Amino acid sequence: MEDLPPGFRFYPTEEELVSFYLQKKLEGRREDLNRVMDRVIPVLYIYEYNPWDLPQFSGEACHGDPEQWFFFIPRQESEARGGRPRRLTTTGYWKATGSPSFVYSSNSNRAISLKRTMVFYNGRAPNGRKTEWKMNEYKAIEAHQRIKINH
Amino acid sequence: MEDLPPGFRFYPTEEELVSFYLQKKLEGRREDLNRVMDRVIPVLYIYEYNPWDLPQFSGEACHGDPEQWFFFIPRQESEARGGRPRRLTTTGYWKATGSPSFVYSSNSNRAISLKRTMVFYNGRAPNGRKTEWKMNEYKAIEAHQRIKINH
Repeated sequence: MEDLPPGFRFYPTEEELVSFYLQKKLEGRREDLNRVMDRVIPVLYIYEYNPWDLPQFSGEACHGDPEQWFFFIPRQESEARGGRPRRLTTTGYWKATGSPSFVYSSNSNRAISLKRTMVFYNGRAPNGRKTEWKMNEYKAIEAHQRIKINH
Repeated sequence: MEDLPPGFRFYPTEEELVSFYLQKKLEGRREDLNRVMDRVIPVLYIYEYNPWDLPQFSGEACHGDPEQWFFFIPRQESEARGGRPRRLTTTGYWKATGSPSFVYSSNSNRAISLKRTMVFYNGRAPNGRKTEWKMNEYKAIEAHQRIKINH
């Protein structure tokens, strides 16, 4: 990957992010693939950092894109027990904006991921000040939960 | 290059197109590099084709991007003799739009390329009908012609 010719960059589609990277990560079976993925989409507890501190942790394969970085965020324990994830950092918080949407598989027309867009606020809710930092969160939809979409 | 992980695509900056690909092509010294480049940016007499016929000739490394394709266009003989290039196809013609601009080297702040944007018209000038097809043409500026830009 470090030998990519000039001009080649990581510009994944949402479907690639979910159906390849997130899916393989959740399966977690292939060590060789995990090593590659760590260099493209590292695992990071992003809520331990401010948004502007995140770029330094981005995958080496993605360095050079000044606009976006990709991370796998481990599920929080509270969320695993059915609660809502806490999206606080030391200086602010991430808050969902707009309506959640779906990412679809082009093969099966099934929703494979729930997508939420977050905005970072400085300060503490409900008095935070909105910033320009945005984050898209993609959460895998398990096969048995998948929603069939009719066109 | 065929082994790129999912999500990696050819999204070059204008500077990479000119300072790496076009420059190396014009130098034409390295056979190994030329073989790689032929698969990213093939040489094509694009005026022998209509715009909608071009995608099939694009470099294999670039397949999958539905929006843009890259070609090296050999200089026409008439242009080599100082004339204007003819941009006719069998069904229409490419016509410059807007003002030419420059691509700059971020290292030296010098203009390394002249950029023209073209639009494809169906029919014959001056009665052609404008289409949605656009092309950016990058012409290298030789070192001795380069313009120093002061910021």
